[in-house]
Amino acid sequence: MSEQLGLGRRYMATVGELGERALIELMLRHFTPMPGMPVPFWDDVMAISLGDGRAAVLNTDMLVWKTDIPQGMTYYQAARKAVVMNFSDLGAKGVRPQAFLASLGIPRDLTARAVEEMARGFEAGARKYGGYIIGGDTNEAADIIISGVAYGVIDENKIVKRESAKPGDILATTGLFGDTTAAFKILLEGYQAPRRLRDSLLESVYMPTARIEEGVALSESGSISASIDSSDGLAISLHDLHRSSGVGFRVETLPISPRAKAFAELHNLNPGDLALYGGEEYELVFTLKPNQLEAANDALKSVGCELIELGITLADPRIVLVEEGVEKPIGKGGWEHFKTGEHL
Amino acid sequence: MSEQLGLGRRYMATVGELGERALIELMLRHFTPMPGMPVPFWDDVMAISLGDGRAAVLNTDMLVWKTDIPQGMTYYQAARKAVVMNFSDLGAKGVRPQAFLASLGIPRDLTARAVEEMARGFEAGARKYGGYIIGGDTNEAADIIISGVAYGVIDENKIVKRESAKPGDILATTGLFGDTTAAFKILLEGYQAPRRLRDSLLESVYMPTARIEEGVALSESGSISASIDSSDGLAISLHDLHRSSGVGFRVETLPISPRAKAFAELHNLNPGDLALYGGEEYELVFTLKPNQLEAANDALKSVGCELIELGITLADPRIVLVEEGVEKPIGKGGWEHFKTGEHL
Repeated sequence: MSEQLGLGRRYMATVGELGERALIELMLRHFTPMPGMPVPFWDDVMAISLGDGRAAVLNTDMLVWKTDIPQGMTYYQAARKAVVMNFSDLGAKGVRPQAFLASLGIPRDLTARAVEEMARGFEAGARKYGGYIIGGDTNEAADIIISGVAYGVIDENKIVKRESAKPGDILATTGLFGDTTAAFKILLEGYQAPRRLRDSLLESVYMPTARIEEGVALSESGSISASIDSSDGLAISLHDLHRSSGVGFRVETLPISPRAKAFAELHNLNPGDLALYGGEEYELVFTLKPNQLEAANDALKSVGCELIELGITLADPRIVLVEEGVEKPIGKGGWEHFKTGEHL
Repeated sequence: MSEQLGLGRRYMATVGELGERALIELMLRHFTPMPGMPVPFWDDVMAISLGDGRAAVLNTDMLVWKTDIPQGMTYYQAARKAVVMNFSDLGAKGVRPQAFLASLGIPRDLTARAVEEMARGFEAGARKYGGYIIGGDTNEAADIIISGVAYGVIDENKIVKRESAKPGDILATTGLFGDTTAAFKILLEGYQAPRRLRDSLLESVYMPTARIEEGVALSESGSISASIDSSDGLAISLHDLHRSSGVGFRVETLPISPRAKAFAELHNLNPGDLALYGGEEYELVFTLKPNQLEAANDALKSVGCELIELGITLADPRIVLVEEGVEKPIGKGGWEHFKTGEHL
């Protein structure tokens, strides 16, 4: 009887009550896994073996105008971002994106000009990273929907998964965090900032960039053990790496952008929170054996990027930030669909 | 000045005024074509060369609940159909679908049970044709959006394109038409039918099937010159084959389903119109040299299907139906997004 009640409660629960991750777990139970999948579920991308040592790698991500597009973002920028965010997941696995497909939902009363601006945004996003728009699909919808698909090919043994982080590995990243969190505070919560600071913060949201060359260079160097793209925020990225590989993390240095620091100072916010609990940043968060540090550094330098050490990978599952010698737990705050209450 | 006016008018035009095809044309002008694309724009699928004689083949199609899901269709059926319609385009090119990705837009207040039913529908659609659900993405949206991606691999020289129909080729198909058109008249226009007829007509819309084995067998036999899936309706499919290959068609026999005939008789409708101007049927419409008729027939028989001759391919661009010795033009009626006024 109690089991029946439990089942009933789960079935009647809404998507909003469950949240995105529980929802995906529920769906996955119904899928027969493809034999020989080169990448397990719960990684950044999907992959299919090509039978000759290579894998075709795919990723799909949707932008829904009403939910995902902040005020002030243009059609061009939204379409460009759809490419960047889909390509970013491939880059995090070491895969160079070759092609992008755009499946669009469009309201009848949208102007042709708006659609042309989106076309220019797709093209700009794809060409920036050497990829091509190879087609898509248009559909009538009440809201603008941009569902993108990124495609690339890689040697199976060069795919950098989430699951292979090992205790003792160095935890590192490709850039500084906090700008987008500050920008969303301006856009969604009415925070103010001087014009120039405001503009450069908003730019991080309107014109994001992905770490494609960086991911490919790291993968080709063979120097890193695991990787994830930070688009759900730094904190969630660490929890996701933990989920897939079982390890924990001790973060010793938070790479906070100077702009986020300035914004935090203005509003008496904790700059570390801005860096940890944001999202829509497309940095790579990765792990590597200490003896690979120079190789990974060289790989990133060869494409004009600096490796930033964050901390160390732990055998036990705690995920903590060390501040003045004291460990503080890093929560799961950050971007999750349906669970907007969890946002910073 | 007049040109400026023209430009202004085009820019201010809405998507609803332009229609889907004009809209896609507008977008394509902004895309750099990928070098060596194995399939041109305006075919059923997109393809990327794998560099070893094979191509990765992709298709993406979106279902928007409010616009695309008829009354009475369940979550299970809608999800299953999303797979069938995406796989069908691959089948029409001779490609066996291996994998499906589901990108979902979901309202917060949808029940978890509904999402589980969709998961079961995805699984059923994929497994029916030997494919696997390899992942996807969930997003918050005001309406249910199912954006699907189908993936498969084929030898490049086995891809059956739209552009290669030749004058003198026989025009043929894999099945009978008209059921879905009748079903949409019941669902959207309030037409009546006796219970048993009604149920079997609605089944054609709720539980469509794709011609995957048929397409693969035809491609492997090397017996056909061009092919398209009939999901936009038989008439539009002929116009699309014309658009890509330049040829025209003389249809001498319309393959009308007995159920569509019975429905037409009940309501004093033209059964030929039901067969021509419908959509959401997933037959293959293809062309072949007359001396390949036996080979194509054998290929289809080997997978339990019958080849149905429709007519002949013409050098000039007319697309006509011969009735009692008189040629009547076949119009462009059928399914096009945004242009619902063009529907039958």
